[in-house]
Amino acid sequence: MARIVMKFGGTSVGTTDRIKNVARRVKTEVDAGNEVAVVVSAMSGTTNQLVAWTNEIARLHDAREYDVVVASGEQVTVGLLALALQDLGVNARSWLGWQIPFRTDGIHGKARIGEIDTTLMRERFTQGQVAVVAGFQGIGPDNRITTLGRGGSDTSAVALAAALDADRCDIYTDVDGVYTTDPRITAKARKIDRITYEEMLELASQGAKVLQTRSVAMAMQHGVRVQVLSSFEDKPGTMVVDEGEIVEQQVVTGIAYSPDEAKVTLVGVPDRPGVAGAIFGSLADSAVNVDMIVQNVSQDGKSTDLTFTVGSTDLDRAHQVLEGLKGELGYSDIVSDPGVCKISVVGVGMRSQPGVAKTMFQTLAAKGINIQVISTSEIKVSVLISADYTELAVRALHTAYGLDADGDG
Amino acid sequence: MARIVMKFGGTSVGTTDRIKNVARRVKTEVDAGNEVAVVVSAMSGTTNQLVAWTNEIARLHDAREYDVVVASGEQVTVGLLALALQDLGVNARSWLGWQIPFRTDGIHGKARIGEIDTTLMRERFTQGQVAVVAGFQGIGPDNRITTLGRGGSDTSAVALAAALDADRCDIYTDVDGVYTTDPRITAKARKIDRITYEEMLELASQGAKVLQTRSVAMAMQHGVRVQVLSSFEDKPGTMVVDEGEIVEQQVVTGIAYSPDEAKVTLVGVPDRPGVAGAIFGSLADSAVNVDMIVQNVSQDGKSTDLTFTVGSTDLDRAHQVLEGLKGELGYSDIVSDPGVCKISVVGVGMRSQPGVAKTMFQTLAAKGINIQVISTSEIKVSVLISADYTELAVRALHTAYGLDADGDG
Repeated sequence: MARIVMKFGGTSVGTTDRIKNVARRVKTEVDAGNEVAVVVSAMSGTTNQLVAWTNEIARLHDAREYDVVVASGEQVTVGLLALALQDLGVNARSWLGWQIPFRTDGIHGKARIGEIDTTLMRERFTQGQVAVVAGFQGIGPDNRITTLGRGGSDTSAVALAAALDADRCDIYTDVDGVYTTDPRITAKARKIDRITYEEMLELASQGAKVLQTRSVAMAMQHGVRVQVLSSFEDKPGTMVVDEGEIVEQQVVTGIAYSPDEAKVTLVGVPDRPGVAGAIFGSLADSAVNVDMIVQNVSQDGKSTDLTFTVGSTDLDRAHQVLEGLKGELGYSDIVSDPGVCKISVVGVGMRSQPGVAKTMFQTLAAKGINIQVISTSEIKVSVLISADYTELAVRALHTAYGLDADGDG
Repeated sequence: MARIVMKFGGTSVGTTDRIKNVARRVKTEVDAGNEVAVVVSAMSGTTNQLVAWTNEIARLHDAREYDVVVASGEQVTVGLLALALQDLGVNARSWLGWQIPFRTDGIHGKARIGEIDTTLMRERFTQGQVAVVAGFQGIGPDNRITTLGRGGSDTSAVALAAALDADRCDIYTDVDGVYTTDPRITAKARKIDRITYEEMLELASQGAKVLQTRSVAMAMQHGVRVQVLSSFEDKPGTMVVDEGEIVEQQVVTGIAYSPDEAKVTLVGVPDRPGVAGAIFGSLADSAVNVDMIVQNVSQDGKSTDLTFTVGSTDLDRAHQVLEGLKGELGYSDIVSDPGVCKISVVGVGMRSQPGVAKTMFQTLAAKGINIQVISTSEIKVSVLISADYTELAVRALHTAYGLDADGDG
């Protein structure tokens, strides 16, 4: 017997037939003698509709009332799934955020999870009852509904698994696991059987959309064993686990790409202390997230060029902020390029294996792809290239690191 | 300054533009210095969709989970209306049933209202805050969401008005008041300015769909002044008040018709004590609601015919129950007729004014309309006729009682 948290996303519960399908999968785990909590998202499309309504009413809306509106989506699916389970003879009961209670702070729209009281839920497990839990929502200190931000249901599931001391947290989705790279780019992409938290975290934050970054960080922090698997096929997925559980380590585990990047270069920035602080401090104050940063060596000892990347949606705001600083800083020009893509190779094996970056640079050079910016961490090398070469670069690197399904992987 | 409860139904909040319109109406009352609580239904169509989903999942569903699903509709509208009010500069906050709390018993799907704690809401009134309250929903003794049954938002509004000691409960709807009869049947129907609780109760239960019967009963019990008015036009509606507030009393105030009736006759029922008890007891046990009942005098001292009406939707079930009793009772036949209509004339004035029934019978006879069953109460006379004559009967009676807009009304 194990205690399992199962999580189904919006596509998996998008119609009443799919909800019945989810109920059958849950019943399989119950029949195997497991204690089960199921976390569900809203039916696909629902949250977008609810968000659109709030925008129609008021462009700048109160996050507290926004949360009331959008949290209704998960309320529908927990009720329907509980009914579907009961219809299969499974003892089931729905739980909303405020009923558990699933406590969060009061930052509406992107609340952080606090204490989750599982006393009653554990008691119901002993009576053979399945808990059907609304993802994405909690209750704040002022007794009002909070939500965790888009994609928050993954995080709800992992947090609940941690609070329940669950043996496993299974994240059901519309793909059957985590791949060495996006299968839409190369048919040679392979499903990864086991991946470490650190690698998953890098892949998620570098553009792989399978799991929400925040949920991976939480799983790592609490040691929750996460499995990513398909809600439509009946086969094992990808296990996200501690490094120690992985016997044979690949040097590179996966290749991610992030097309929603824009490059900004400040030309002729005076080369004196405090300038970088002024620039990135102002951008941070305006909630512009800066990723890669490169500062060239000053040629004349007086001025230099400063290049960095921001999310495409933040580009306009970044321009505004920088133009406001022009008088103070005295740079000569701003040049920006929205047509860039960040490619990252990720693997814990590169800690002990040198030459990973070299392979990357040589592979891209051999295809005539110019590297604009480079950034590295302990288990990741990222480069910025022209977005036109995205697919070519991903395919070449996938082959170069021996990840191809027909290769030596 | 007054304290007002305003209630808007599904049509009035059916789109985001209509919700903005509702916000403007609420602002008018706030600007006039009133303390305001607004009760809203789900956007029109939403509840039907939610109910349809529960039926798709399971025909016989757990009412506790049904309540979780359908209560989500009002959650959306309270959030959106609070946002719309804030956008107009009005201090507003949404309240769900469990937040107030709006306590009910645990009979899910048709819960009865218990205590409503208005302490916090009254406190917020003093700070100038408008309460936007989800209709139709409450919280049961086991901390689970309950709903009051279809159309329950009228009842929520009246109950809240009673708990808040409100000066008035304004029910906004898609008609501009209560009419002497259905304006779709005769253009001579007139809007009634003031009507007593008793009359409104009879009209509502006899088929006038403007207010939910249960909400009128509750208003009468607690002395809540109810106004029915249009959410699309800016003019006074119909006040439902105590008899003492109405200076000049009409003999007949309105004419209602209820087409969803079916007539059942049991032929050759043995004329002995206990037979009626067995029949109507069994029907009640099967939740078949019986309305008018007529038993003819026994011709031969041995057997008689028994006629009664049930709702059209209950006719099949009534047949089943009666066939199950055939062995025990020994009647000779069941004859049923779904093509009947009940016409009722209602008015508190008929208590002191004789001849109302006589006028009704003579008017119908003059049109060649056969009366099948008669039933009377202190302030109402109802007859059952063939449904084919519904419009003819209503128009003739409307004229006969002087209710026509061009008459001596």
